[in-house]
Amino acid sequence: MHVRATFLSDPHLASGAVNDTLMHCVEACFDCAQACISCADACLSEEGVAGLGRCIRLNLDCADACAATGPMLTRRTHASPALIQRMVETCAELCRACADECERHAEEHEHCRICAEACRACERACDAAAVSLGATGA
Amino acid sequence: MHVRATFLSDPHLASGAVNDTLMHCVEACFDCAQACISCADACLSEEGVAGLGRCIRLNLDCADACAATGPMLTRRTHASPALIQRMVETCAELCRACADECERHAEEHEHCRICAEACRACERACDAAAVSLGATGA
Amino acid sequence: MHVRATFLSDPHLASGAVNDTLMHCVEACFDCAQACISCADACLSEEGVAGLGRCIRLNLDCADACAATGPMLTRRTHASPALIQRMVETCAELCRACADECERHAEEHEHCRICAEACRACERACDAAAVSLGATGA
Amino acid sequence: MHVRATFLSDPHLASGAVNDTLMHCVEACFDCAQACISCADACLSEEGVAGLGRCIRLNLDCADACAATGPMLTRRTHASPALIQRMVETCAELCRACADECERHAEEHEHCRICAEACRACERACDAAAVSLGATGA
Repeated sequence: MHVRATFLSDPHLASGAVNDTLMHCVEACFDCAQACISCADACLSEEGVAGLGRCIRLNLDCADACAATGPMLTRRTHASPALIQRMVETCAELCRACADECERHAEEHEHCRICAEACRACERACDAAAVSLGATGA
Repeated sequence: MHVRATFLSDPHLASGAVNDTLMHCVEACFDCAQACISCADACLSEEGVAGLGRCIRLNLDCADACAATGPMLTRRTHASPALIQRMVETCAELCRACADECERHAEEHEHCRICAEACRACERACDAAAVSLGATGA
Repeated sequence: MHVRATFLSDPHLASGAVNDTLMHCVEACFDCAQACISCADACLSEEGVAGLGRCIRLNLDCADACAATGPMLTRRTHASPALIQRMVETCAELCRACADECERHAEEHEHCRICAEACRACERACDAAAVSLGATGA
Repeated sequence: MHVRATFLSDPHLASGAVNDTLMHCVEACFDCAQACISCADACLSEEGVAGLGRCIRLNLDCADACAATGPMLTRRTHASPALIQRMVETCAELCRACADECERHAEEHEHCRICAEACRACERACDAAAVSLGATGA
């Protein structure tokens, strides 16, 4: 992705310094959104779809949260770090809940295993970004 | 909008009972997202756009939060009320911040006055929805 | 919704003239997106969910198209009418396909009947907006 | 990103065969959406923002189209290839228009140069995906 390049080109980041923690979180959010959308779609193709309703709903909720957090974090310039931090913390909670649910189906469904992996990575990236935003004001 | 009809048609709402507070919040989120997108676009047409950067960014952040919250609240069936509550509370914070900023430009720009109105309405709807989700588990 | 007010506040619409056709399409897109998201969620709660996979996928596709078209049409100022027209025409096709599918389940599922209604209304609104954009350049 | 893994885990892709053209398009759409959102934000920080209104609007339009196309293409299973093809072709047009505009500012603004690069890559990926969808029905 062009995420690093876009961060480096930000006219407000003096000397092109980049906050790797925030940048990684942006990448993780877009990655997690795609994995969740894909897992929901794959769940719909499973014979046991009737038992995957909660997984599909959490996939869609998590995808929506990530699809809002990635852009907000990309648009961080001059924004209120406290607001973005709150959104990132909320996104982390949704990623955690979706990962917990997908892990329950990981042995049976490869797409749930992969989605859980992407959700855990995004959860960690959001947790780290929240700390960074809280400490430095981004 | 068809929001009420969609809530009434939910097979999991016994006797078609509808939580008016949540339903109103869904409507307010979609309304606020549109108002914020429109305000950002109108700000870009103003001679003083250079001084409206913070307003435009908050418009876009608020629109993204509302565009994630409306669907999540629509998808409430079997979802975790605590997670949705957290998202609704976060959305309320973004609506409040955007309303605060737009109100600063309300006298000068009609679109900011209207956007602030939509953001305040959504902030109140989200606050009420958060209480409802916390109390009843929706 | 505040759609009319936001259109009236656009500094580039001299004398506050409003293109009712485009305004109605914006409202229809946000309404249809919500109805589709709700129908997909309700389908997931049905015993016969295994037979509703195509309906759910079209619900989600249509919701995504509407969620992109509503904002684009809201942001029409100075934009290229031909590009917005193309998006509106594409959205109409997705609304038509989703309505066709939902109508197949309308007798059995009230949420499909309501979603089909919202999709048809959005299809018509998009068709009218496409004509308006093509004729006047919006 | 986990795109390849999510495609490989699709229970409907016999023998795990993956359509690399569609997979690459999904990656390009998410990448382009992020680059466009970032370019719009960076444009808002430029002294010459008053002259970048068209660029910002096309950034936002292109981001919305990509944010709808990536998920639709991820959800392709059992979907109508003709509908997805239409969306991909529309997305290609928006990427082309945004790239054309960003290239006009590429020498002056690095973020426009990078965004134009991401838009061209997505335009090509969408053109290739459209051919693939038209030929094979995906």
